[in-house]
Amino acid sequence: MRAYNFCAGPAALPEAVLARAQDELLNYQNKGLSVMEMSHRGDDYLAIAANAEQNLRKLMGIPSNYKVLFLQGGASLQFSAVPLNLLGTNQVGNYVDTGIWASKALKEAQQYGQVHVAASSKSSNYTHVPSVDSWQLSTNAAYLHYTPNETIGGLQLHGIPNLGNNVPLVADYSSCILSEPLDVSKFGLIYAGAQKNIGPAGLTLVIVRDDLLGRAQTITPSLLNYTTLAANDSMINTPPTYSWYLAGLVFEWLLAQGGLTSMAALNQQKAKLLYGYIDQSGFYSNPIALANRSIMNVPFTLPRAELEALFLQQSAQAGLLNLAGHRSVGGMRASLYNAVPLKAVEALVAFMRDFAKQHG
Amino acid sequence: MRAYNFCAGPAALPEAVLARAQDELLNYQNKGLSVMEMSHRGDDYLAIAANAEQNLRKLMGIPSNYKVLFLQGGASLQFSAVPLNLLGTNQVGNYVDTGIWASKALKEAQQYGQVHVAASSKSSNYTHVPSVDSWQLSTNAAYLHYTPNETIGGLQLHGIPNLGNNVPLVADYSSCILSEPLDVSKFGLIYAGAQKNIGPAGLTLVIVRDDLLGRAQTITPSLLNYTTLAANDSMINTPPTYSWYLAGLVFEWLLAQGGLTSMAALNQQKAKLLYGYIDQSGFYSNPIALANRSIMNVPFTLPRAELEALFLQQSAQAGLLNLAGHRSVGGMRASLYNAVPLKAVEALVAFMRDFAKQHG
Repeated sequence: MRAYNFCAGPAALPEAVLARAQDELLNYQNKGLSVMEMSHRGDDYLAIAANAEQNLRKLMGIPSNYKVLFLQGGASLQFSAVPLNLLGTNQVGNYVDTGIWASKALKEAQQYGQVHVAASSKSSNYTHVPSVDSWQLSTNAAYLHYTPNETIGGLQLHGIPNLGNNVPLVADYSSCILSEPLDVSKFGLIYAGAQKNIGPAGLTLVIVRDDLLGRAQTITPSLLNYTTLAANDSMINTPPTYSWYLAGLVFEWLLAQGGLTSMAALNQQKAKLLYGYIDQSGFYSNPIALANRSIMNVPFTLPRAELEALFLQQSAQAGLLNLAGHRSVGGMRASLYNAVPLKAVEALVAFMRDFAKQHG
Repeated sequence: MRAYNFCAGPAALPEAVLARAQDELLNYQNKGLSVMEMSHRGDDYLAIAANAEQNLRKLMGIPSNYKVLFLQGGASLQFSAVPLNLLGTNQVGNYVDTGIWASKALKEAQQYGQVHVAASSKSSNYTHVPSVDSWQLSTNAAYLHYTPNETIGGLQLHGIPNLGNNVPLVADYSSCILSEPLDVSKFGLIYAGAQKNIGPAGLTLVIVRDDLLGRAQTITPSLLNYTTLAANDSMINTPPTYSWYLAGLVFEWLLAQGGLTSMAALNQQKAKLLYGYIDQSGFYSNPIALANRSIMNVPFTLPRAELEALFLQQSAQAGLLNLAGHRSVGGMRASLYNAVPLKAVEALVAFMRDFAKQHG
């Protein structure tokens, strides 16, 4: 019996994907071995890897002048890789500070060159995203980095910022990639840890426009150098082969669901159900500005902090797992990634309603 | 029907480990979710992670003044991390060049400080390991890096070098870790990619002595900083949770086999069988100096290069997979890691004998 899993990451995976992985685990397509045991240079594995990339390109409509890299280290290693690859001498890395993840990215960048905070909502405790009109870029901007969805804060910038210039947009899409259609051509670089909407932890996607290659600082480790990685099809060394395979299964599953337009409709429906209930409950509350509420991560608080332990205990008993907020902010959080079905959100709302009745 | 898999990496995993992973894939111990879907901060996953580390410490007898890190990026990312963490200003990284992997490590280190080649067998095409007596360290040596086993060349330094000084030994144990007992206390730092004797690709182990922490260069990415990683129990960000779990299953399996003493005896038996046959065959040959033959990776050549394609085709048909040598050196190679059973080597030798009869 599988429970409903609202974990912010590593997150729920589609049951159909797990079932297929289970079926193929000891013997992939009668090849006599597991995908985990395959040479990454062999034809069988190369087909798996190429197929995953093709399906991702199809899902997201990634233009041909973008490379897709399948890497390791999580989004946090990209906090270093982005400035190492894109921040030249006398240039400035521009950052929009919208929460814990954005501020980690800009802090890491400071080791590798000049950094400018183009906008910040820190003073209002990150409860909104500064309006794009207010973003002020430095001169000699190498790129503008922002975080479309803050997993911990539960806030999201809906739509792609149009700054009316040619400064490459760099975005940490870890917690909202594949949740809806996205015009990749508007970006210089997109990166995302896999463990929310892509696959298991230990895989990181980078989608980078060709013209941004070839600029890496000399101190860039080879394994972080996009140019070298792209030239070697993400196989300078052994890639995380099994995670890449599982991501490929997720991409196939997403295509079978109707692609990102279908996922967006479902994700909107799930979020609307949960936010709608929270807002009318008079018991639960969400702190984020309406225009910046995340479709993927819904933090909420109870009217009295002493109810939290009971809420977590009873929800877990009801088969609703991982509803605790991030340890840095407390409260509750329900993450509603692609693999969380509508009926999971319905069950959560039903539980929340009962709990509110008992303790309201 | 599972075949015999002689891949150099990603390599064969114990069938019992894969079977258990398969059994637990959708629902780990009735928790209602896959290990892949668990929060890395939750009690269930923290127990899995801690248990894996404890079993590794038990297997290898790792002293308490060593940290064990479960990381990403492969050994190749450690080629950068080692000098970034250990190579101070006015210090020199010393390297023994024994083949493709050792030379990659020293090349990467040159980006981060002074490097000295303490010994090299490049001029003899890496067919032996320079004798430890001939290793000449620089002054101000920060560490001495060597590669106990060269996976591609198929050569191994048996025993731990005793240089009669306090320069920390740093070793890339990727392709021979856990193959036999090892006195960890002789080392400053040991690292290893998982995809040979530990688990699936995408996990990297680092075992580092406490006193070597706290020395990282300021340009070190946080995700490569041993001090920060150790302080956060390898969880600065989301670790490769599923690979870590699978490594834990491998450690349990190794303990059940009798630990590393038992594995060493079995590995010796397998290697003796294959080398013994090669040497007396008059058909196959191995280029490595007798004293430096690898117990894990056995390269061999056929008398005529035009037989290679046929050998690979017929061996694969006989259920003996991944016997091609590395693309950079050609020929054949059989890797005999822990998860390759004796009967696999017996089947390989029987096939080789038949093939030699037909084409000798």
